[in-house]
Amino acid sequence: MRFPRRIVVAAGLCALAPSLAHAQAGGDIGAALMQRADVRAALESARADEPHVIEEQIRLCEIPAPPFKEADRARAYLDAFRGAGLRNVRVDKAGNVLGERPGRAGPSTSLGAGRPNLVISAHLDTVFPEGTDVHVTREGTVLKGPGIGDDCRGLAVLLAVIRALNKGSVQTPATITFVATVGEEGLGDLRGVKALFGETLRGQIDRFVSIDGSGYGITHRGVGSRRYRVTFKGPGGHSYSAFGLANPAHALGRAVAVLGDLQVPAEPKTTFAVGRIGGGTSVNAIPFEAWMEVDMRSVDAAALHALEAGFLKAVDEGTAAENARWNQNGRLTVEKQLVGDRPPGLTPVSSPIVEVALSVTKALGLAPTLDEGSTDANTPMSLGIPAITIDAGGQGTGAHALEETFDTQESWKGTQRALLLTIALAQ
Amino acid sequence: MRFPRRIVVAAGLCALAPSLAHAQAGGDIGAALMQRADVRAALESARADEPHVIEEQIRLCEIPAPPFKEADRARAYLDAFRGAGLRNVRVDKAGNVLGERPGRAGPSTSLGAGRPNLVISAHLDTVFPEGTDVHVTREGTVLKGPGIGDDCRGLAVLLAVIRALNKGSVQTPATITFVATVGEEGLGDLRGVKALFGETLRGQIDRFVSIDGSGYGITHRGVGSRRYRVTFKGPGGHSYSAFGLANPAHALGRAVAVLGDLQVPAEPKTTFAVGRIGGGTSVNAIPFEAWMEVDMRSVDAAALHALEAGFLKAVDEGTAAENARWNQNGRLTVEKQLVGDRPPGLTPVSSPIVEVALSVTKALGLAPTLDEGSTDANTPMSLGIPAITIDAGGQGTGAHALEETFDTQESWKGTQRALLLTIALAQ
Repeated sequence: MRFPRRIVVAAGLCALAPSLAHAQAGGDIGAALMQRADVRAALESARADEPHVIEEQIRLCEIPAPPFKEADRARAYLDAFRGAGLRNVRVDKAGNVLGERPGRAGPSTSLGAGRPNLVISAHLDTVFPEGTDVHVTREGTVLKGPGIGDDCRGLAVLLAVIRALNKGSVQTPATITFVATVGEEGLGDLRGVKALFGETLRGQIDRFVSIDGSGYGITHRGVGSRRYRVTFKGPGGHSYSAFGLANPAHALGRAVAVLGDLQVPAEPKTTFAVGRIGGGTSVNAIPFEAWMEVDMRSVDAAALHALEAGFLKAVDEGTAAENARWNQNGRLTVEKQLVGDRPPGLTPVSSPIVEVALSVTKALGLAPTLDEGSTDANTPMSLGIPAITIDAGGQGTGAHALEETFDTQESWKGTQRALLLTIALAQ
Repeated sequence: MRFPRRIVVAAGLCALAPSLAHAQAGGDIGAALMQRADVRAALESARADEPHVIEEQIRLCEIPAPPFKEADRARAYLDAFRGAGLRNVRVDKAGNVLGERPGRAGPSTSLGAGRPNLVISAHLDTVFPEGTDVHVTREGTVLKGPGIGDDCRGLAVLLAVIRALNKGSVQTPATITFVATVGEEGLGDLRGVKALFGETLRGQIDRFVSIDGSGYGITHRGVGSRRYRVTFKGPGGHSYSAFGLANPAHALGRAVAVLGDLQVPAEPKTTFAVGRIGGGTSVNAIPFEAWMEVDMRSVDAAALHALEAGFLKAVDEGTAAENARWNQNGRLTVEKQLVGDRPPGLTPVSSPIVEVALSVTKALGLAPTLDEGSTDANTPMSLGIPAITIDAGGQGTGAHALEETFDTQESWKGTQRALLLTIALAQ
């Protein structure tokens, strides 16, 4: 998901673009490609195809895909990949759906052949639990339904890109692997994209684009996070008759007091918060357990690591101080469970992939913005592989809310942008 | 409820007893009364009546009396008071059931007549919520059911005392007011007994005994408590994009860290604990609210007051420190809601009422123990009115648990002790 922290890029910035390896200069490539008849035909086709895109967006969205239960939507997507004529269509161990459109160099079955390999993806999962009403309603140009923008829009646009490439008979030098990932949201913890880079296509991806959500932004800063659930435990007992035992809620308080005073840099932006706390069964009992959930984020790996070290120290200090206060009576223990691990990363504004994205966005008459967020692109960013996440067009509200909306007005521009970016990065 | 902190009283202690005002010397009164034919007849009757007592204990216990919903059991008790021939039987505003057995000086309708006035009580309420299965089972001598000891036993013994006084035709100089109180448990916060002393019989009670639970103890130390629910509030927001706002969970932690280091005296025993904590909706959001429930206790009013002042200061300091940390950005507020207020009190071991209780206990061949607890007697103790709580005989386990048991073996001794104490204190 993208965060609302945008930089509107000045037009002049694009002129600084260095050339993209295996491609034309990033700053010009959008306009240059639009001179080609096949590309123009594909773009025309994408625009004409938009009603179909919206229908697919609704159809896919009405197949539930709760966290860790994306299989039904994945099956439908597998069929769509097959129907679109992709090769080597398959589901990997993690549950990601993959299909290839071979480049002129042949299919990417080995490290040598079919390189560069461009991966274009969208994510299957939603944040909504099983049993959520996923019916989509439509009023005028506005669709309403859980996940309609994030990321049913991306899933539909991904299929539209394949169709438009076919309609325009666009041949690309690079192989394009289309992927629908699992586990992008929340506790999914990027498990799909982690498996993609760590196992399924390990060492075989040269460029990565995730199409995620509504709008026209380009996410190039991957905000990483480390999340913990910390549980303080002791024997507990009656608040009066057992007084003198160490208290897990007191240890938690001591740890939070230390955590609260940690200093973090403003740039690279680094943050922390105790998001949830709980514990205890009765006002008149020393709890046997108290817990907290803590979120730490940064776009910078070193800053995130330093923060995490300070946090872990705070937890140990809080526990030790509470045990010392009661002379180790009812000695507390503490469990620090890592429940979220999203690597931070940054694709520089000056990098070819960002330049190309800015170029194609401008070539289509759209105003490019640069965003930060926590998306599937975090993983390749952290590995040093050129990666961005782009919005999929239209206008959205209420991502992660049941009342999420997607306004289809001129949403074909988003489809065209994804298409042109795909062609540009597959050169 | 009594706490398991007992002092077994050495026999010699009773010899030190000063005389009870309007009565015989505390140390001898038990044995002296047992010389009287009417008292002996009453005691005989109480023993013979025990099967009836146990039946009533079961019958009353199977009428639900959840916190704040004692009315059904109160109605049954009202009928029992009427059936036993008490005068001026009534329910007061708070829901307490009252009935009088006039002393030789006449009914206690005014401050002058019928003094001294002795109140003997038991409590109607249980800790169990509506819908709890209150069916009582019996296996051998053991009854099992929620509240069977605490305080259905006290309620049954109270009625048995009236019957035995009548059977023995015991005339007392003092008027005895029998009371079944509401709100003794938990959040009931002693509201019944507070209303009794503050309004219904304000200024008209000279001695007070609560019959509560199983066993043979004498509670003379009233552990007082002050309980708070503290809620820290702020705007809350996304853990990353809204970073820089004060965090209610952090303020709570800071307050708890200060609270945890407060020093309290070992004697008079004074205690504190954060019993429950909560707040927050998601690991990746700054909570808009965090709360804690805090219990503070002491048998000493000054010590309790000093602790409470330290606690309130800790809460304010924690809030201020968190606001200062973020330069008042998303400034937090805090609510300190008093949810429990039980006044502490002490009836000295050397006081006549304790002497008398020890004397009658010994006269019946029972081993006297002195206990502390938080019972209806707290309120008169805090007002300086002679007051104790006595156990109602038998042997119990699991007070406040669904599996509570009461062993009826020789439980008539508890009935006799309550009877003899009533007679002794009504002299």
